[in-house]
Amino acid sequence: MSSRWFQKRWARGAPGPSAPPAAASPGRGAAQQPAASPYRRPKFLRGAGVGESPAGRRPVRCAPRDRPLQWETGYAEVINAEKSEFNEDQATCCQIAIRRRGTGEEEDQDWLILCSNQYLTGYYWALFDGHGGPDAAIIASNYLHYCIKQKLEEVVEAITEAQPPMHLSGCCICPSDPQFVEEKQIRQEDVVTAALESAFQECDEAIGQEMKATSQSGGCTALAALYLQGKLYVANAGDSRAILVQRQSILPLSSEFTPETERQRIQQLAFLYPKLLADEFTRFEFPRRLKGDDVGQKVLYRDYSMTGWGYKTVEKADLKYPLIHGHGKQTRLLGTLAVSRGLGDHQLKVIDTDVQVKPFLSCIPQVKVFDFAVHNIKEDDVVIMATDGLWDTLSNEELAQMVRSFLDENRTDPYRFSELARCLVHTARGTKNGHQWTLDGSSPASYDDISVFVIPLHNRDKDG
Amino acid sequence: MSSRWFQKRWARGAPGPSAPPAAASPGRGAAQQPAASPYRRPKFLRGAGVGESPAGRRPVRCAPRDRPLQWETGYAEVINAEKSEFNEDQATCCQIAIRRRGTGEEEDQDWLILCSNQYLTGYYWALFDGHGGPDAAIIASNYLHYCIKQKLEEVVEAITEAQPPMHLSGCCICPSDPQFVEEKQIRQEDVVTAALESAFQECDEAIGQEMKATSQSGGCTALAALYLQGKLYVANAGDSRAILVQRQSILPLSSEFTPETERQRIQQLAFLYPKLLADEFTRFEFPRRLKGDDVGQKVLYRDYSMTGWGYKTVEKADLKYPLIHGHGKQTRLLGTLAVSRGLGDHQLKVIDTDVQVKPFLSCIPQVKVFDFAVHNIKEDDVVIMATDGLWDTLSNEELAQMVRSFLDENRTDPYRFSELARCLVHTARGTKNGHQWTLDGSSPASYDDISVFVIPLHNRDKDG
Repeated sequence: MSSRWFQKRWARGAPGPSAPPAAASPGRGAAQQPAASPYRRPKFLRGAGVGESPAGRRPVRCAPRDRPLQWETGYAEVINAEKSEFNEDQATCCQIAIRRRGTGEEEDQDWLILCSNQYLTGYYWALFDGHGGPDAAIIASNYLHYCIKQKLEEVVEAITEAQPPMHLSGCCICPSDPQFVEEKQIRQEDVVTAALESAFQECDEAIGQEMKATSQSGGCTALAALYLQGKLYVANAGDSRAILVQRQSILPLSSEFTPETERQRIQQLAFLYPKLLADEFTRFEFPRRLKGDDVGQKVLYRDYSMTGWGYKTVEKADLKYPLIHGHGKQTRLLGTLAVSRGLGDHQLKVIDTDVQVKPFLSCIPQVKVFDFAVHNIKEDDVVIMATDGLWDTLSNEELAQMVRSFLDENRTDPYRFSELARCLVHTARGTKNGHQWTLDGSSPASYDDISVFVIPLHNRDKDG
Repeated sequence: MSSRWFQKRWARGAPGPSAPPAAASPGRGAAQQPAASPYRRPKFLRGAGVGESPAGRRPVRCAPRDRPLQWETGYAEVINAEKSEFNEDQATCCQIAIRRRGTGEEEDQDWLILCSNQYLTGYYWALFDGHGGPDAAIIASNYLHYCIKQKLEEVVEAITEAQPPMHLSGCCICPSDPQFVEEKQIRQEDVVTAALESAFQECDEAIGQEMKATSQSGGCTALAALYLQGKLYVANAGDSRAILVQRQSILPLSSEFTPETERQRIQQLAFLYPKLLADEFTRFEFPRRLKGDDVGQKVLYRDYSMTGWGYKTVEKADLKYPLIHGHGKQTRLLGTLAVSRGLGDHQLKVIDTDVQVKPFLSCIPQVKVFDFAVHNIKEDDVVIMATDGLWDTLSNEELAQMVRSFLDENRTDPYRFSELARCLVHTARGTKNGHQWTLDGSSPASYDDISVFVIPLHNRDKDG
């Protein structure tokens, strides 16, 4: 994502409260107190030759072959083309051990141990695409799975029952309680969904606190997949994407949340609370920025309640900068952000104004549930999760075609999912011709950070 | 829809400003000033033996055979089973002549004349399902098509162009204007959609004014279909439904808007403006009404930001009546209304409180566009539009099966679309066994008002 509107404030040093042990933080500023999370690449890349990237080169990194990821997941990433000093994407891939906690039992800080029979085991993959610096994505990649674990443990009694009980304690105050729950069609997966929604909120709050304490700024998108009890939950807040590629079909597992897709929600908020725009912006959308000559004319516009385009007579106030402006990938919220959901950005103001961006952002993910019990999963069926750097260059159909032919042609390669991830990133990054990165020597390649997981669903019973 | 929560205030007499010439108003109260719209059945039913319904009988009414509706549309209706004195459904079926108005030309009040070449011709069908009395539905059935005509005439220059111009006047202030419009992918149909959205709003305001002036109360849902320039626009606000039935497939042309389907929008409004609940209601949803014994327990709940179900510790305030309560067809907004979109209800308060319902209602329809150019329409393809009385009894699939076999078996009957409408209404109404209306002598039939249009799409080029 573009970071051009952000002021970069670096205040670095030892790890913060939710950060991992201090790692190398190349290129970061002098230490201050309190301390911020150090820059780093995903933990599972350690030992994969991740070091300084020679200026102007964009090597594609994969997980090391001697430490395979769960389910033989493939992963690859590449840094942007000199857009920012750091790769602002981050990734996490781990198991989540969910414990049935006794009443009053103290929270176990050392929870990231391998699961045993007393735990429910979840498998977790997540991508975070930072903007305005890598910090929010680093905190989120360290912390979101912890929030998810915590929220699931709070309701573990409910998600181990076929039908969640009305009362979490299991007591039954009204004899018809199971019937009420049945009538509302409340299922196990609804409780997991709410736990994920709540975990994103908690992670967002924690990021806000930590970044305030350490004077950091910025935000990130979050796309998280959780496999639990035979279902894959895909929670998305931002413009990353997950799709299931099968032999004959493609199934989108997420939708994108951008100022374009969430225009009506954002405009309505500005209608209800006009003060949020501080007389600096107009909430109306126009095909282009209006000029003095447009005043008095009837021009195409959209307001919050409209899905169609109407005509309005232009007033002077309509010449202000539009709340949502641009088209396609260039669409910006308050001239600042290209996404409308995500974590962080608590302190973000529109440059040279007092207009805050955070009120218009949502940290709540949309959660889609994929139930393996009702799908016939074949050997080469994979979920592709990737940040927008990939999807800007490849359509779902182009990607699916590449996935199918790559897996077909590399049937015996034990590292084929990792190699597929590398191939996808390599394709989207393109090759350097002079000063330009291009696909096939002509059309422009992705200049953004790109991160890709390839999750082979057929391997889901091999681990754990 | 249920009218049990409404106070009925009858203030009748001569027609109001937007009402048709006074017709028989059986069973209505004494005249007062200003005057309200008289009760009536749809205009096109006149002469079809529509009179008083003998108590306890529910005759199915069809349009008279000697005055066929446009496109040979079939129509049938039946009154509810003693739920209310009047049939609260209303229907309209007419052409809409859209004129290119000269600048400064006075509005022509006598617009409902047959179209000529100087007009664009639209074909219009609409159903209105009233609650709290028949009044709002009567005004809407008299007035909505007038609003639509007016809104379309305001933008007629734009909808006769392949691509709507940036400026309605056709002037071009910025040479790249056509390119901006192109980039935003703004099409003719977007302008028609906005006109429909705006027409619903204007009709709602007019209903509010007229009902206030005449001390009437109540509201109605609105489902309107407009055929214009090779596209069918289906605008829906409420729980009526339109589907396209083809030989091999069913295509829903509308979605329903109820407290259940719009829970998050409604809860969010209560979160943003808690005063709207006046300490009488809780915005949280629970599987059942909570009791004193639940206080302190963790119970299943949903708030505005949640699609899943979480657990919350019950506080005393949670014992208040829920903003949205009940399940399925019994779900009510503020214990009062079964729909969340529609026209009217401006004065509606929750019984024995000062809580107003209108702020939670939306009068904006969802507009779906069906483009005939990209569908292969066969002879027996029909759009079925019906109020909820039909859909409570028949699923889309059951209905489609009936439609297909009826049309197959009655291929030579010139009145088959009308007879099909009659057959559908008759099936959903059932037969009377003792005091009960049943289907096949066992399961309960619909006790509600039922109105059905059967629109044969293949006939669209026969008129006009």
